[in-house]
Amino acid sequence: MKVSIIGATGYAGAELLRILCRHPEAEVVHITSESHTGEKISGLYPHLRGCCDMELESMKDMEPIGRDSDFVFVCLPHGHAMDVGRALENTPVRVIDLGADYRFADTAVYEEWYHVAHTHKGAERVYGLAELYREEVRTAKIIGNAGCFTTASILALAPLAKHHLIDVNTIIVDAKSGVSGAGRSPKQGNHFPELYDSFKAYNVAHHRHTPEIEQAIEDLSGEKTIINFTPHLVPMSRGILATCYASLNPDITADMVDAAFEKMYSNEYFIRLLGRNGYPATKDVRGSNFCDIAWHIDERTGRVIVLSAIDNLVKGAAGQAVQNFNIANGFDEKLGLDEIPMYP
Amino acid sequence: MKVSIIGATGYAGAELLRILCRHPEAEVVHITSESHTGEKISGLYPHLRGCCDMELESMKDMEPIGRDSDFVFVCLPHGHAMDVGRALENTPVRVIDLGADYRFADTAVYEEWYHVAHTHKGAERVYGLAELYREEVRTAKIIGNAGCFTTASILALAPLAKHHLIDVNTIIVDAKSGVSGAGRSPKQGNHFPELYDSFKAYNVAHHRHTPEIEQAIEDLSGEKTIINFTPHLVPMSRGILATCYASLNPDITADMVDAAFEKMYSNEYFIRLLGRNGYPATKDVRGSNFCDIAWHIDERTGRVIVLSAIDNLVKGAAGQAVQNFNIANGFDEKLGLDEIPMYP
Amino acid sequence: MKVSIIGATGYAGAELLRILCRHPEAEVVHITSESHTGEKISGLYPHLRGCCDMELESMKDMEPIGRDSDFVFVCLPHGHAMDVGRALENTPVRVIDLGADYRFADTAVYEEWYHVAHTHKGAERVYGLAELYREEVRTAKIIGNAGCFTTASILALAPLAKHHLIDVNTIIVDAKSGVSGAGRSPKQGNHFPELYDSFKAYNVAHHRHTPEIEQAIEDLSGEKTIINFTPHLVPMSRGILATCYASLNPDITADMVDAAFEKMYSNEYFIRLLGRNGYPATKDVRGSNFCDIAWHIDERTGRVIVLSAIDNLVKGAAGQAVQNFNIANGFDEKLGLDEIPMYP
Amino acid sequence: MKVSIIGATGYAGAELLRILCRHPEAEVVHITSESHTGEKISGLYPHLRGCCDMELESMKDMEPIGRDSDFVFVCLPHGHAMDVGRALENTPVRVIDLGADYRFADTAVYEEWYHVAHTHKGAERVYGLAELYREEVRTAKIIGNAGCFTTASILALAPLAKHHLIDVNTIIVDAKSGVSGAGRSPKQGNHFPELYDSFKAYNVAHHRHTPEIEQAIEDLSGEKTIINFTPHLVPMSRGILATCYASLNPDITADMVDAAFEKMYSNEYFIRLLGRNGYPATKDVRGSNFCDIAWHIDERTGRVIVLSAIDNLVKGAAGQAVQNFNIANGFDEKLGLDEIPMYP
Repeated sequence: MKVSIIGATGYAGAELLRILCRHPEAEVVHITSESHTGEKISGLYPHLRGCCDMELESMKDMEPIGRDSDFVFVCLPHGHAMDVGRALENTPVRVIDLGADYRFADTAVYEEWYHVAHTHKGAERVYGLAELYREEVRTAKIIGNAGCFTTASILALAPLAKHHLIDVNTIIVDAKSGVSGAGRSPKQGNHFPELYDSFKAYNVAHHRHTPEIEQAIEDLSGEKTIINFTPHLVPMSRGILATCYASLNPDITADMVDAAFEKMYSNEYFIRLLGRNGYPATKDVRGSNFCDIAWHIDERTGRVIVLSAIDNLVKGAAGQAVQNFNIANGFDEKLGLDEIPMYP
Repeated sequence: MKVSIIGATGYAGAELLRILCRHPEAEVVHITSESHTGEKISGLYPHLRGCCDMELESMKDMEPIGRDSDFVFVCLPHGHAMDVGRALENTPVRVIDLGADYRFADTAVYEEWYHVAHTHKGAERVYGLAELYREEVRTAKIIGNAGCFTTASILALAPLAKHHLIDVNTIIVDAKSGVSGAGRSPKQGNHFPELYDSFKAYNVAHHRHTPEIEQAIEDLSGEKTIINFTPHLVPMSRGILATCYASLNPDITADMVDAAFEKMYSNEYFIRLLGRNGYPATKDVRGSNFCDIAWHIDERTGRVIVLSAIDNLVKGAAGQAVQNFNIANGFDEKLGLDEIPMYP
Repeated sequence: MKVSIIGATGYAGAELLRILCRHPEAEVVHITSESHTGEKISGLYPHLRGCCDMELESMKDMEPIGRDSDFVFVCLPHGHAMDVGRALENTPVRVIDLGADYRFADTAVYEEWYHVAHTHKGAERVYGLAELYREEVRTAKIIGNAGCFTTASILALAPLAKHHLIDVNTIIVDAKSGVSGAGRSPKQGNHFPELYDSFKAYNVAHHRHTPEIEQAIEDLSGEKTIINFTPHLVPMSRGILATCYASLNPDITADMVDAAFEKMYSNEYFIRLLGRNGYPATKDVRGSNFCDIAWHIDERTGRVIVLSAIDNLVKGAAGQAVQNFNIANGFDEKLGLDEIPMYP
Repeated sequence: MKVSIIGATGYAGAELLRILCRHPEAEVVHITSESHTGEKISGLYPHLRGCCDMELESMKDMEPIGRDSDFVFVCLPHGHAMDVGRALENTPVRVIDLGADYRFADTAVYEEWYHVAHTHKGAERVYGLAELYREEVRTAKIIGNAGCFTTASILALAPLAKHHLIDVNTIIVDAKSGVSGAGRSPKQGNHFPELYDSFKAYNVAHHRHTPEIEQAIEDLSGEKTIINFTPHLVPMSRGILATCYASLNPDITADMVDAAFEKMYSNEYFIRLLGRNGYPATKDVRGSNFCDIAWHIDERTGRVIVLSAIDNLVKGAAGQAVQNFNIANGFDEKLGLDEIPMYP
């Protein structure tokens, strides 16, 4: 399959190249950047030197890109993928957007949280969280790849929500991310000495991944859901750990919780269940598409605490996109993604 | 005042030396270590070279130590400070224990969570969280210095609990600590490459700081309290951030929350209120005795989220001990503790 | 090819598993550990869960291991590989030792620097630095895989030494390594808080990689060589940067230096020349078998400064071992090693 | 003494505030920033909140600043301190410039390396490396505070150069710095994920601290000196380690080396000699004005290797400036600087 990457110079784009350049069924034909048009991607990312030395093009004219591509991966800031989606609307090209533009079934939610008008409201899109929306992904024209925090959070809570084991309105997700999640553009707040040996929260009660988690929990539980989601910045490069709290419904036992996780995930290659009382660590999944999950029951408070770990750039972005690409093409889901995590 | 440090070779002991050696009213007369008796502390901690080159003694014979000291700081693993407390019972020496032995009014709680028998049940002790128990500390014979996680958590929640603004049984504390909190003994889990670029939780639903937080919240609110407390390990040296969640009681407004914090802390030098919607960072308090606090109201869920940051070795251990020492002696509380945080 | 790993629980062993479990021509048949016999490797290294869950065996009886294996990779502390080498002497099994036992042509040098008797003096061995000793590796019975610091240092200096562009006795190698180079056993010195936000040298003038570099430079230049080698510990997990200094011989021009590097390495896949005035960074090679090299000429002092970066666990250990394995089997040298570095 | 800080918003300026606000003989009267005029410094540096909440002013009108100040500390990019120096020329105000403008006796050297014209050539200035130029500092009008790398390098080499123990033209300084040395402005290269878990060199053979080291070595040895200086970036916040190589002159013994260090530094409070075969670590001096020094003799190569560690923001910038301030005022040199390093 011929694939192109629109907006290839961010971390997600570079990670897509790392994966797609070794994918046995993908050939990268175009990569784009408006600010670095004409430059080699390996000049911006020396780790790619000798592995991928493609030249960056402009996306201004999407026509030739669309003509040459079977799939287009979009790694643009929110609000810009819609332009690509519309430009490719009447072509056979399928689109995987790593941003937020196509994540919401209800575009009003998108507009409320992202403060931009949605300009592609009737799009034939699905939510690209592979383990939960696999059937929809198979045939979708446009896949709104799930966000990084949301992937970790939803996968952690899905079995509990689906089997009505928890009161969904008691959900609190306290999430922690490495700094690559904030992108590659230098900012004062992400300047090395500012973050090193420091830890803090950000966007409390306002992070845009909140409604995305709510949408999925509502899909699974059938119940209106409002949650707390709190992101934090960890002084490390990669990885997300989500610590998810919820009150168990009356008479729910630990065994029922165990069974729900087993039932939903025992056949999912990319989900590794560490079982009750386990402790996922972000390093154990680093560089891989795995999501490691464990859960704890607190008998004293009647709450379940679910822990999940992913690599934000792989299962939280580029890896999940390729997993969706594999599904959409009927390939083995592991194709190009069967890398063992890099430790230590 | 002549002071001694029992168990001076851990990080808390070394931090006490850093502070006490520059304290205008303290003279360190004995420091002890059983495994390094006869060695210079600056051989174990080269940063102290030229500043504190005292020789470590054994604590086997407490009699001369007690005779020479007005105050004894105990930095021993839990279960051992009680021996020191009893040995000094009939002397004028006052004791500040940085461990857990004297933190609980109800020694049964201690025994349940620490799995050791309490051998000094009738001790004349107080809980050493200076801002909340200042009056008790003034005259106490034995001060059970508050734990690191608990200091951050209790200070964050105290105004809300005291003024009955929250349902105390909805409290969830999601806390994150630098690795120095785990002590200086090398362990596989704290080996540098294992933790670097990684993040994980530990002791979910079972950490021993849980009942200590509950004790204080009960004291403040007058209500039986059971909470969730979840510690995490951040790949950094120092610092704790506590993210505390609780449901607001009916009709509690944001202004009432603001007022509660202002009322309780506006005259507390070591507590810096960043106000509603602020973001404390551990680096902003590093090396200092400050506790930075901010809070957020989530109108959608009706929860308040309080963030607090401390240096686990200062306000969470040695600094708080010296603050208690100052109070107990009627000194200015800032004496020896007026250091500006080290940034970046 | 059936392969076994003797001493699989160190970082080099785990990295070998990461590579060999995805190698299309290798099947791992035995992995050993004396202290963890009977345990699953994925219990010790959770990142391997689901990818490699083999059980660790004892190496006490090498006979069945030898019978089942075509190749044996040895990851034991120095002094122990010789036992394996002798045990497999009269079998068809070929051995790749990642330790120092078989690195020296002159075992007296080994004995002088490692302070143990060499018990396998007549061994049919070669030095396993693939780019320089490829022909010897093809047919060797025992391959003494080059050390991590030495790989970075020798590859940096080889073109200069071989073409007599420098005075080999002016060589100074100032090398910096991530902490994984010190192994997985917890030690006080490698405890997380001790190293974080710190930098220091170690083993100045005495590191055992010194004579290994000298041996290779002598091989290349034909001149007796004594050098300075200084290792440092960088607060990071992986990676080595070697900064190599030497005085240029009279009348040597920058172009001659450029040409020497081009001539020796332009066809080497795993060596990426960044050219004159380039800046390799360890992150650009992380997780890969690449060695990135650049050089600078200081006209003022007449010295050349060569910079080289490798991942100490890949090109400096497991990756190089697999590269040697590929060469020894006549495979494409990149087999199983064609991973793109992981960035950021 | 009334002091002002021109350019207070960089890391050196903030560190000056940390020190001066606790200095018993200094009162900070003005702090300036052109881009943040009118803002509180504690808004930019929340660690200062409650400790220093001064408002930033413009330096456009130096007249009132000069009138109110006894001393002015200048923390501007090179090329700008000369304007301040000239503006205060006919006032009694004394100037300590933390930049390079006044470091060179020969302004032609400055112009050659900094590529700007020197506009204050006849200035009454001295080089502000306290241990070596103490007498000059006492009465100087303008003190060109020594650079960070240079302080570490010169202090390491001074006894050897002064006593003619080494061939000064064999000097190689391989130096490593934490990222705060690059300033607070966010740049792509210092973006957190780019540097974390990475190590690299920069400015090889061209760093501007080179001629500053040469100037001092020439002053000490009386010999024309050309050296190699290579800086590297360590993924940490603070600290410099300099690894300095030089060939010993004929017949120089280890004892003579020891004696030279003892003679020069045994009475220097801020220099801590770790002796022959010691290992300074940057963490051991973090937050303090100490310079830890050790040396190693390599009998095989006839070279001496000197290791020195400083905190780049303290002894390498603000601390040294305050030390010079103390000397210039006849105060105890330790005033305001007697802080014990912060470990771990």
